[in-house]
This record gives sequence, structure tokens and C-alpha cells, in this order.
Amino acid sequence: MNRKDGRGPLEMRPLVITPNYNAFAEGSALVELGQTRVLATVSITDGVPRHVHPRRSGWLMCEYSLLPRATPTRTQRERFKLGGRTQEVQRFLGRAFRAALDLKALAGKTVIVDADVLQADGGTRVASILGGYAALFLALDRMVRDGTLDDWPLLEFGAVSLGWFGEDRVLLDLTAIEDENAWADLTVVATRDGELIEIHGGGEGRPVPRAVYERMVAAGLEVIPSLVAAVHRAVSKPLS
Amino acid sequence: MNRKDGRGPLEMRPLVITPNYNAFAEGSALVELGQTRVLATVSITDGVPRHVHPRRSGWLMCEYSLLPRATPTRTQRERFKLGGRTQEVQRFLGRAFRAALDLKALAGKTVIVDADVLQADGGTRVASILGGYAALFLALDRMVRDGTLDDWPLLEFGAVSLGWFGEDRVLLDLTAIEDENAWADLTVVATRDGELIEIHGGGEGRPVPRAVYERMVAAGLEVIPSLVAAVHRAVSKPLS
Amino acid sequence: MNRKDGRGPLEMRPLVITPNYNAFAEGSALVELGQTRVLATVSITDGVPRHVHPRRSGWLMCEYSLLPRATPTRTQRERFKLGGRTQEVQRFLGRAFRAALDLKALAGKTVIVDADVLQADGGTRVASILGGYAALFLALDRMVRDGTLDDWPLLEFGAVSLGWFGEDRVLLDLTAIEDENAWADLTVVATRDGELIEIHGGGEGRPVPRAVYERMVAAGLEVIPSLVAAVHRAVSKPLS
Amino acid sequence: MNRKDGRGPLEMRPLVITPNYNAFAEGSALVELGQTRVLATVSITDGVPRHVHPRRSGWLMCEYSLLPRATPTRTQRERFKLGGRTQEVQRFLGRAFRAALDLKALAGKTVIVDADVLQADGGTRVASILGGYAALFLALDRMVRDGTLDDWPLLEFGAVSLGWFGEDRVLLDLTAIEDENAWADLTVVATRDGELIEIHGGGEGRPVPRAVYERMVAAGLEVIPSLVAAVHRAVSKPLS
Amino acid sequence: MNRKDGRGPLEMRPLVITPNYNAFAEGSALVELGQTRVLATVSITDGVPRHVHPRRSGWLMCEYSLLPRATPTRTQRERFKLGGRTQEVQRFLGRAFRAALDLKALAGKTVIVDADVLQADGGTRVASILGGYAALFLALDRMVRDGTLDDWPLLEFGAVSLGWFGEDRVLLDLTAIEDENAWADLTVVATRDGELIEIHGGGEGRPVPRAVYERMVAAGLEVIPSLVAAVHRAVSKPLS
Amino acid sequence: MNRKDGRGPLEMRPLVITPNYNAFAEGSALVELGQTRVLATVSITDGVPRHVHPRRSGWLMCEYSLLPRATPTRTQRERFKLGGRTQEVQRFLGRAFRAALDLKALAGKTVIVDADVLQADGGTRVASILGGYAALFLALDRMVRDGTLDDWPLLEFGAVSLGWFGEDRVLLDLTAIEDENAWADLTVVATRDGELIEIHGGGEGRPVPRAVYERMVAAGLEVIPSLVAAVHRAVSKPLS
Repeated sequence: MNRKDGRGPLEMRPLVITPNYNAFAEGSALVELGQTRVLATVSITDGVPRHVHPRRSGWLMCEYSLLPRATPTRTQRERFKLGGRTQEVQRFLGRAFRAALDLKALAGKTVIVDADVLQADGGTRVASILGGYAALFLALDRMVRDGTLDDWPLLEFGAVSLGWFGEDRVLLDLTAIEDENAWADLTVVATRDGELIEIHGGGEGRPVPRAVYERMVAAGLEVIPSLVAAVHRAVSKPLS
Repeated sequence: MNRKDGRGPLEMRPLVITPNYNAFAEGSALVELGQTRVLATVSITDGVPRHVHPRRSGWLMCEYSLLPRATPTRTQRERFKLGGRTQEVQRFLGRAFRAALDLKALAGKTVIVDADVLQADGGTRVASILGGYAALFLALDRMVRDGTLDDWPLLEFGAVSLGWFGEDRVLLDLTAIEDENAWADLTVVATRDGELIEIHGGGEGRPVPRAVYERMVAAGLEVIPSLVAAVHRAVSKPLS
Repeated sequence: MNRKDGRGPLEMRPLVITPNYNAFAEGSALVELGQTRVLATVSITDGVPRHVHPRRSGWLMCEYSLLPRATPTRTQRERFKLGGRTQEVQRFLGRAFRAALDLKALAGKTVIVDADVLQADGGTRVASILGGYAALFLALDRMVRDGTLDDWPLLEFGAVSLGWFGEDRVLLDLTAIEDENAWADLTVVATRDGELIEIHGGGEGRPVPRAVYERMVAAGLEVIPSLVAAVHRAVSKPLS
Repeated sequence: MNRKDGRGPLEMRPLVITPNYNAFAEGSALVELGQTRVLATVSITDGVPRHVHPRRSGWLMCEYSLLPRATPTRTQRERFKLGGRTQEVQRFLGRAFRAALDLKALAGKTVIVDADVLQADGGTRVASILGGYAALFLALDRMVRDGTLDDWPLLEFGAVSLGWFGEDRVLLDLTAIEDENAWADLTVVATRDGELIEIHGGGEGRPVPRAVYERMVAAGLEVIPSLVAAVHRAVSKPLS
Repeated sequence: MNRKDGRGPLEMRPLVITPNYNAFAEGSALVELGQTRVLATVSITDGVPRHVHPRRSGWLMCEYSLLPRATPTRTQRERFKLGGRTQEVQRFLGRAFRAALDLKALAGKTVIVDADVLQADGGTRVASILGGYAALFLALDRMVRDGTLDDWPLLEFGAVSLGWFGEDRVLLDLTAIEDENAWADLTVVATRDGELIEIHGGGEGRPVPRAVYERMVAAGLEVIPSLVAAVHRAVSKPLS
Repeated sequence: MNRKDGRGPLEMRPLVITPNYNAFAEGSALVELGQTRVLATVSITDGVPRHVHPRRSGWLMCEYSLLPRATPTRTQRERFKLGGRTQEVQRFLGRAFRAALDLKALAGKTVIVDADVLQADGGTRVASILGGYAALFLALDRMVRDGTLDDWPLLEFGAVSLGWFGEDRVLLDLTAIEDENAWADLTVVATRDGELIEIHGGGEGRPVPRAVYERMVAAGLEVIPSLVAAVHRAVSKPLS
């Protein structure tokens, strides 16, 4: 199965990460995954929501948003009502970051990860995970250097998306046009050593045979370590 | 690992389905899964949203809502803003039903599946899938009898939830209190013969070893055929 | 004037009350009045709104909502804006319950009566009053048994609706179709011994002669004691 | 029972009506009832809402609003959410005007009655009815003179409010401070010859004996003809 | 260039100010500028928004609103969303009043200026400034008499609008119809001795030559002292 | 008066413009003005709003938004209500672009200029004008090359902001911290040859002497031609 950009089925698009893109945030990174471009910023403030005990834990939440011309035709801004897709994506991202971060180490603090999509050509939640991980890494590293954080609280993790196109055709890292034509898709968030943080997939109009599903999970887990390594190179920090 | 209600780890709670609970809907069912109680109704109307070609396809959407006292303490109604969890659940449900239904067979029609949770003790999305399947089955069966539908367009499918409690402890069909204590959870929607329609899972604060994850998927797929059979008994229709 | 269901003009539809339908609420009842079906739950929590002095008084408010398929064709959920009819009905219900309950006896507490209409065939505010009365009775009775309430604070009361169909034609307890054809309607909330708690009526397109109006009030007051008695039988508590 | 302003119990406050206060509306009137001041305007436009058949009927709706400093302390504007009281009042007003107006005579047209309260010292819905009646009268009279309306479609009607203060103490036309102290209140909308258009009343914290209730209705009906006459004098049109 | 109402190009419409129009507000005035009619009320309450230090400063904000039939055809009320024009106008007004008032003299207090437009024939923001100035003057004067304010904190100021109609045609105090036809417009808020408080102008579809712009500013500044004097006559207070 | 960054009082910060930053928009530019960074995109679609005649004119509107971490501390997203400042800025921008563009040349089309602020250090509306001008230029140029536009419809224009700091201290192109300390500010939008498109200014807490005001306007007009030239260099198009 040929891809328009000549990639192999399990090949990622070029991944470029610009750390500290934003001058004000505690941590930030601009992630380019092919034509997809996500600006991730991390804000850390004092105080936690009511449902969290401030001496025992911190909190993390995520916001995700598309700029109107991130898409080939202009998408309306969500100014009066938050769309279901946006809510679903930011809940997905928030859960993933909370699972990878030891919130007890940030007792009494709230971390906000903002993922703003400047350009969307598929894989925006993957780019949000990778950019958010880089931004969070930089913010935590600053805290360690400031002496406000003792132990490193963040797992090494990454994410990838995959699609099924019938029979045994599985592609990694779908562009927007590939995503539209997929029979099913899957997003995998996992640690560098292959433990699952979040997994979300489903058929678009038809169910997925179990063997195909297992191949997709395996292919996703295989590529994640190289993505984690790429982030670490970008922020100039060795892997653990 | 003992469960408060004495169930085995991979045992479902009692499942009671009352078909045609509602006098007006094209199809309806009240599902009781232990103390969880969901009223599912199916409405079928003419017309489709703009993004659907009316001669080539129909459309299906799902709405999900908790009554305020579905929960041990009263939950505020969503009257001015729709919460993220509600949106996420109803998107999950909508995708599952669309994947299982041949929308081309309902060209020009919109199906709305409403899942209203009267009482919530864990597993509300599972009960919504089972109740919605029953209600949709009844609505489509009526169309077949009316002669407005020729070929049966619905796959036989069901859903189940599972939780991980550390090491090799996996439980099926969690109550609310079990769900709160789980280290990770997973919802599996699949056909009677084990093809995956939708899968959604993640760690709550820690990642899941791959072997545990695979055991959870397998245990879920194993129990689904018996749930599909239970729905068919309730609506008095043989399995295919 | 013949009624489709063969009732006499001043005859109620069958009234069935299932107490304690909900497992979590402080009090609850499912009321079936013909095809109309309302689930009433009562929640009692500590704290009062700002405009109430917590040591001198408690507070009661009511919320009313239709499930989307309570009606013959699907009604849109009120998720972003609350409709005028809903607000009017719940204010009507709230005033009635506050007039019948001695709020001083519940100083510092807020009572919320939720009336969720599962099926609507006319008379939903009457069913809400009867169900809310049953649920409130059960919740207060539990407080008496717990020793958290000394004196019984609730009047014995009920409600009924009536319609005028021209000349001397007055019908009690209208179905939806009867309600649509009425020239005027009236809802009466009153105590068992005939004192008025709330009255609300008006012509639909034409004014009502005073003599007819008085007949409607009289007919309403006559039937209310039997409705109060029916609720008491359902909750197994004698009338005072 | 003495009133602060020296009125007898069944005496109205001074009523001053300025017709054509607004330069643009099809009809308008400024009503002063004691210190209460309501600006009513009537707008008549082509087109009807969907639920009305344009060749068979017209439609009328009413909007009611308090200016922020209509009240002794400033009331917040309803700019993002419409309060329950506002909705209830404008539904009450709309029903009353629809019952008094022959909508068939205005087929295909929508009438909007706007009642804006410049100052509120009790009786704002009464002043809205009287001002709206005057404004509607002027708008219809203009249509008759233009030849766009053949038969006079409006009943002669008015409104009044009453309060109960225990035992046999009934007061007419309550000020804000009287209204707060009433044990029950009642608003009566009726034609000049005593037919009821809308009635709405209830106890504030205690039920009303039936005899008292009947006295209130009677006292209301007795004063309405003089109010209708006052409006007619203001707009310089004889009663029928 | 002839004006429909026979005015000279730099002539104002008749200005009538009724002080203390409202019975409850700390200060109020009804301003009539030709057919434009604005009711301004000033409310002064204890407490300031968070961003203000209560011991060092007070705060002032402004709300502006059109009654629906202020306009030749009915304008929809802003009940669920605030329009851009309304927000822009009330921010303009708020800034002007804050620049003219010494907020330190009102430490810990919030002033709300409400400008409600009863009728709009151009110049509503000018009438709001003049009416708000009168109302604020009366409210502050009351504080001085009460002994709660020592030094007079308000500059003497006013406002005016102007339009450009091509070449050297400049008109003062535009009506609505003139405003629609202007090639550019300008609003000037300034003190009696010609210092600028706020200026806002722009071309409607074409840019304004600098010389014309300077003529407009000069003409505006020339007329403002007479407007300030008119307000002072209306509130019976000499100019400083 | 010394500036922190060593600039002279009437010196601009470095201006960097990256044309075609976005892959999808009809025109786009990333503008960096010191630390301020705005992404402007232009979308051109068929169809016009109702108030525009599609054969006689086109329409242009502008949306402006801050990313949450554009600011030193995180600013909440406007997801449910649009703030007054945002509305005011985007109305200001929209008017400016409409005054500079011959809408008749784009009959039947709607142009949307989106200005998304990635980083805000003062001058965001100036950067939005410059970036929007560049993006619009590129979009129109493409239309000329496509043959869908005959005559060049856009004036050559730019914008600049200025502040007053007491006495004769006037600074050009304020940073955020300078803006906070200014006694008054002014934004000037004008053509390359000094005609005014939009002007907006006011005192922050005190009025501005007329001579100072005139100096600010003159200084603004003097610098604008060099800014227009900078944009033209960036998009590689000669000035007219």
C-alpha cells in the first residue's frame, strides 16, 4: 500500500521539536509532525481544585484547541460552547499526563498543559502528547534546578496513532487524508518500556478482527521508544 | 480478591432487561445491571445532518445523561453547559452504534439513541450499550415488519467493563466503589464473534503492563457473547 | 361528553405509586397517572442559599425535567438554555412545596425535589406534586425515625388539573390530547381539608365565565382528599 | 389595617398613562401606578413562528424586563441567562394577551409586546397588562385607520393584584413592601364584564382558606372595569 | 449641506435633561437629545473588584443597553450573549468616566453607571456621557452633603459626535440617518477646558484626510463647554 | 526618558514578518514585533452575511484571540463568553480592514482575518494590522494571479501605538510594561500617505492636553510609511 508521501507503512513523518518556543510559560515546545504543528505550553500555579487534598497531591489538567485555520477550510472557533471532540481529546490528554506524572510530588500545585494546534494534518493528539511531554519535562527540570522539586516525578512516555485499511494493511502515523479513509484507528500512549498509559480505538463503520487489533498495538509499542528519544534529544536531556 | 457482593472476579452482576418500557419511542428498553438502571429509547426520524448524503446514508447519534439523583449524592443537572464526561461518553456510544449499524440501509433517516441513567452504580456505558442495542433492535424489527426495511442492518454486539487492581487482579463489571479503587480500567465493545468495535482504557495514575492489558481484553471478549444472548432473550428474538 | 378512555368527566385516571424507587435519594417515588410517569426524588443537604438565615429556616427548591422521549415525538434536551415552560413549572412546584412545608423545622437544610418525567400524557405537574409529596413524606419520616426531626412539618396536600371545553363541559385530569383541545385549564394545589396552596389557570384563546371557573375550583377541591389518601396508602402511613 | 400611603384596603394607587411615549413603535404607553413605572411598546411584523399557520392565524409574544435600577438596590441584568421569574412573568403576560386578542384577525403577523420596568414598587405585571393593553389598542387602532384590519379583535380587559394578610385582611394593589409581608397573593386578569382571562395565586408559606380566596377574586373583579375605563380615557377611545 | 431638521452644520439638537428621574438610584437623569432618549442611573455600593486595592482606590464600571423598541424596527434583546457593539460602547463609556473621576476619593466603593437607551436616533453614547455625568454629579453631591466625601473628585466634561460627508462637509451631532450616510465619524470626550479624555473615530469605507480630521476635533472641542454648562443648569449647580 | 530595551522614544522594536506561515490559508503571515508574536491568516469564502447585497459587495470580518500562555501569567480561554476587550479589538480591526479594502471588488465573497496572538508584549493590535495586511495582500495577489480579481482593491496602510507619560514624554510602540505605566495611549491606523483609517485613544485616569495629543498623532503618522514598506519587503512586492 503506497503512501502519498512515499513513507513505509510503519514509518513516522519527520518530527521537529523546538523547545522553549514561548517566552513566558514554565515550559513550552513547538512540535512539527509532518505538516501538523502544535504549540504546547505548561503553566504551574499554586492551588488545587476542591476535589484534591492540597497537602497530599497536586493536579494536572489539559486544554486542547484548534486555531481556526489549522484546517484546510476554516473551522469556527469554540467561543460559546465547547465541542464534543475538543472535550474528548483534552480529557484523553489529561488522563495520559496524570497517569505519567506522580502528582504527590507536586502537592498543592496545579499544572495546566495547553496544546494549541496551529496546523492540523492528522496526529494532533500524538503531537500534543509529545509536545506536552517536552514542555512538562522542561518545566519540571526548572523546578529541580530551583530546588522546589526533589525527586523526578515523570515517566518517560510517548504516543502514536495507527490506522487499519482492510485485510492486513496497517499504517503508522496517519495524515488527515489517510485518517479519513481508515476503516479503524487506534491511539496508543505508552511508556518507553512498553507499559500502557492510555489506549483508544475503534472501527469507523466496521469492527476490527482481533489479530489486526493486536498487530496495531504491537506496532505502536515498537515505535514509541524512538519518539521518546527524539524528545529527549530536543530538550538536551539524556534518557534515564 | 473478595468482592462485597460475593461475585467471582469474572462474574457479571444480574442483568434484567425490560423491553418496550416507553410507550412512545420507536424502540426502548430499561436495563438493570445490579443497581445500575438505564432507560434507553430509540427515535427514528426523517432527515439527516448536512454532512451526510440523504440518498446514500442515514445517521445515528447518541445522547447520554444522568438524572440528578442517579448518584449517591445529588449531581447537578447539565442545563447550561455540557460536561466533558457526558460528551465523551455519548461520543463513545455514538461511534459504537454507528460501527455496528449499516447506515446505508437507513438512507435519509436519523436514529437517536437516548441513554438516561436513572441510577448509577458503575457500568453505565455498558448498560447504555446493552439497552441501546435492545431498543435499536426493537425499532429496526418494527421497520422490517412495516416493510420499510429490507435487510437486517445491525451486527450482534455487546459491551463490558473491566478493572485492574495491581499484580494479576482483574475484575469484570465493576461497581462504582470498585471503579474508584481500580488502578486502570477498560471498556470493550465487540461483536458476538469477537471482533472489536470500540476499546477504551487507561491507567489511573499508573501504567498497565502489557500482559495484564491483554488478559483484560481477552476476559472482556469472552463474556460478551453471553450478554448478547441475554438481550436477545429479553426481546424474544433468536440470535442469528 | 365522551372521553376516549371511557372515564366519567370528573374521574381520575388510575394512579399507581411505587415508593422508594430510587436507592440513593433520601426519599423517592415513581408515580404513574394513566400513561404519565414521573420519578420524584428528594435530596436533603446541609446549608441554605444566601437569602435564608441558616438558624431560622431551611429552604426547598424544585427541578422539573422531561426526558427527551417522554413525548410522542422527541423533545430536545435543555442542555444550554432552560425553556420558559420548564422554569414556570418548577417555580410553581417549588412554591407549592414551600407553602406546605414548615421550613423553620428544617433550619439550615436545603431540600431539593427533582421531578423527572419519564413519560408525559398530560398532568405532569399534578404527578410531580403527588410524587414529590410521597418522596418528601418518606424523607421526613426517615428524619423523624433518626431523631433529627421532632415535629411533623408537612401539611397533607395534593393537586389536580381540570379543563373547560365550552358551555358547562368540565373535565378532570386531562390527558395530553384533551389538554390541547381545552378552552381553558386550571391546576389546583390544596390541602386535604380544602385550603388553597396554589392555583393557576387561564383561557386558551378565550375568557372563562365566572360560574364555570367556580365549578372548576370546586370540582378540584372535591377530589384532592382521595388523592392524598392514595399517596398515604402507597407509603403505608395513616392520614392524620 | 392601615397602609403607609393612607389608602383604603381596596383602593388603587394613582394610575397615570402616557400614550405614544415611544416614537417608533406601532403602539406604546408609559404606565405609572404609584411609584411603579412600566414602558410598554407593541411591535407588529410580518411572519409567524413555525407552529402557527400563516394564513389561519397570527401570533403574539411578550417580553418583560427590569432595568437594573428599577429596584431599591441594583438588580443584575439578565444578559447571559434568563431568570425563572422573568420567564414566568412573560409567559403569564403572553397568555393573557393571546386570550384577549383574536389572533385569526391578524393572520400571518406577529405582535410583540415589550414591557420594560423603569421603576418597580409592586404591581409590575398589572402595570404591564394595562400598558400593553393601551399600546396594543393604539397599534390596532392605527391598523383599522390604515384599512389593514377590518373587525376589532381585542377584548376590553385589565388586571389587578391582591394580597392576604391573615384573617380577613385583604389589600388591593400591593406596593413592594406590602407584597413582601403578604401571606398570599393573587393576580387576576379579567374582561370588563367579569370573565376570567388568567388567574394566578398562592400562599407564601401557608394555605389560604377558601372563603378568603373567593373574597380576593371578587374584589379583583370589582375594580377591573374602572381600570379598563382609565386606559380608554388615556387613549381617548370610548368603551364599547 | 442642508439638514432635514434645518440645523446648521455645527448646531446641536435640543438637549433636555431631567434630573432625579429615578426614585431609587443614588443619582439619575433622563437625557433627551433630539429624539434620542437615555435614562442614566448611578449606583454606588461598598466593595471593589479583586484587581483594585480597597483602601487605595474605588472602581467604576458602565453598562449600556438598548430597549428593544429604541430603534425604528425592533432590536432583539441581548439575553444570552452580549453583542460586540454593546461591549464596545460600554467599555468606551467606562474608560471615559474613570478618566474623569478621581477613584482614590472613593476608596473601597464601586460606582455603576447604567445607560439605558429608551429611544435611539443617533448620539446615544454622547447622551450616555451627558446623562451619566449628570447622574454621577448628583450622586457625588449627595455624598458631599452626607459628609462621606470630602473633596470634589469629578472633572467637568462632556462629549459630542461628528461626521464627515466628503470634501469639507463636517456635521455635528448626527441623527441616525445622518450617521448611516457619513463617510467617517468621530466621538470626542473632553473636559470643559479642552483636554482630551477619549477619542474614537474612523472612516466607513474610506480614509479621512488629516486636515478634515483636525477640523472635526476642533469643532468638537469648541461645542463641549456649552454642553457641560447645560448639564450644570439642569442639576442646578454652578460650574467651577 | 530611558527605555529598558535601550530604544529611542520614537523607535520601533525589531519587526520580523514570515509570509505564508500557514499551509492552508488563502494568505498568512507570522509577525514578530519585539517579543509580541501574532499569527494572521486570511480565509476567503463564497457567500456574504444577510445585510450585504451579494452582487454589489463583499464583506470582511476579523477575529482576534489570545492563546492562554500569550501572557506572563496564564489567561483563561474565552470558551463560553466573549470578553469585552476581545470584542472591542476585533471590531477595531474589522473596521480598519473594511475601510482599506474596496469591498465592491470582492462582491459575493467573505474575507475572514484571524489574528491569533501567540505571545503578547504590547502592540498586539498593531501586529494584527500589519500581519493581517500582509496576509490579505498575499491572498489578493493570489486572486490576481488566478484571474479572479481584476483591479487591486487594497490601500497601502499600517498601524502604530503610542503612549503619553506626562509633560512632553511620548513613546512609540509600547511594550506591555510601558503600556501599563502610560498616562494615556493612542492607536493610529493610517495609509502610507497619511490619511486616517481609524484612531482610538484615551487617558488612563487623566485627560490629555491637546498639544500632546497632536504630537502623538503626528509621530504615529510619521512612522507608518516605514512599516508599510517593511511588510512589502517581507512579501516581496514593491510599493505602488
